[in-house]
Amino acid sequence: MQLVIGNKNYSSWSLRPWLGLKVAGIEFEERLHNLYAEHAREERLQWSPTGKVPVLLDDDLTIWETIAIAEYIAERFPLAQLWPQDPIARALARTVCAEMHAGFAALRTACPMDVRSRHAFELTPEVAADVARIVALWADCRERYGIASSEGEFLFGHFTWADAFFAPVVTRFVSYGIEVPTEAQLYMQTVLALPAMQEWIAAAELEAWTAP
Amino acid sequence: MQLVIGNKNYSSWSLRPWLGLKVAGIEFEERLHNLYAEHAREERLQWSPTGKVPVLLDDDLTIWETIAIAEYIAERFPLAQLWPQDPIARALARTVCAEMHAGFAALRTACPMDVRSRHAFELTPEVAADVARIVALWADCRERYGIASSEGEFLFGHFTWADAFFAPVVTRFVSYGIEVPTEAQLYMQTVLALPAMQEWIAAAELEAWTAP
Ligand SMILES: N[C@@H](CCC(=O)N[C@@H](CS)C(=O)NCC(=O)O)C(=O)O
Ligand SMILES: N[C@@H](CCC(=O)N[C@@H](CS)C(=O)NCC(=O)O)C(=O)O
Repeated sequence: MQLVIGNKNYSSWSLRPWLGLKVAGIEFEERLHNLYAEHAREERLQWSPTGKVPVLLDDDLTIWETIAIAEYIAERFPLAQLWPQDPIARALARTVCAEMHAGFAALRTACPMDVRSRHAFELTPEVAADVARIVALWADCRERYGIASSEGEFLFGHFTWADAFFAPVVTRFVSYGIEVPTEAQLYMQTVLALPAMQEWIAAAELEAWTAP
Repeated sequence: MQLVIGNKNYSSWSLRPWLGLKVAGIEFEERLHNLYAEHAREERLQWSPTGKVPVLLDDDLTIWETIAIAEYIAERFPLAQLWPQDPIARALARTVCAEMHAGFAALRTACPMDVRSRHAFELTPEVAADVARIVALWADCRERYGIASSEGEFLFGHFTWADAFFAPVVTRFVSYGIEVPTEAQLYMQTVLALPAMQEWIAAAELEAWTAP
């Protein structure tokens, strides 16, 4: 199984499946692709009809959307419990992943992932609304299934795809100095303390490529 | 089980889970909501923290993202086979649904769903690129799993969530007179001929509400 990913400093979508696979201890070959190289798009189009990363390659199979990669991994490695076991919790976890997939446009546009950098940033009302929704969403999941259940500090107790989907939001809040309530900070620390997250951040810091 | 949906003429996201449930013969209560009524957003916020429809309500459960509704229904009603049975086909079906979920921005912005109307429309290069990608995607799925397998005329042989996800694209191609190759036209006819699709279109035609 190969996972094609973009620059660790910049590619938020790549971080998600990479983190899920790493935390679950699933073996895979990492294929690192520089999004800003000459002919990079042509190279990506070899794997993916959308010309985007991440892409999962497994024998005859090519999956070029993060949500579909997540579902495939969850089906192939059920013991990793990358979705919550409880059907209602699982539905909520999928809901917040889907909300992330097409949502939070203001935050994503104003604060592109840039793991190793720190930027002075003034909140606009639109970004503030996105941040407020994310903070509420984290609190809701954690109060229902995380801290409340004493199963763990993640959104649904133990680590699930929902945490992977919000990991690039955690790095954005750090990079752009976005202030959040203590509860949300505790959640961010939980994500940042993951050894796999540390590994990704260290690689982003060492990465020689910079965006044009 | 209740499904809150928006105006049948306009709400493309509402059509998707509604169509899947209907085609699968799953009973549910339809709760029709006028997106353009006074205080409509406040009303939606009662059900969904994003203030959007569709929303599935099932006892204690509230699901406000179409992809998550699709997964929940597929899990609860496995005999409906709303995902392909073959794991590789299933991964591809989920991939094209995820691509629809956040993709085709040019087409969606230029050609909002308006089931009962016909609009003169000039293709821009961006919309043409979206149309070309959709036509290629339909052909790819149908050649691999649909017409080729003689299982049926849908993207994956029999009707699946993938067809539900592209149903609002079919109505857009009709409403905006977008020309596509014969193969794609045949696929569109397959979708439009579904009795549930006819029922939705008839309701959209009769709907008294109009967008401001
Ligand atoms: N919907 C895709 C989004 C993937 C995406 O936008 N990837 C970015 C990098 S983070 C990319 O490949 N951009 C290159 C391009 O848009 O050409 C997914 O969920 O995987
Ligand atoms: N990501 C959502 C999108 C839902 C959506 O955008 N719904 C539209 C109607 S088709 C809506 O409720 N719009 C009202 C609003 O944005 O306030 C999903 O997949 O269900």
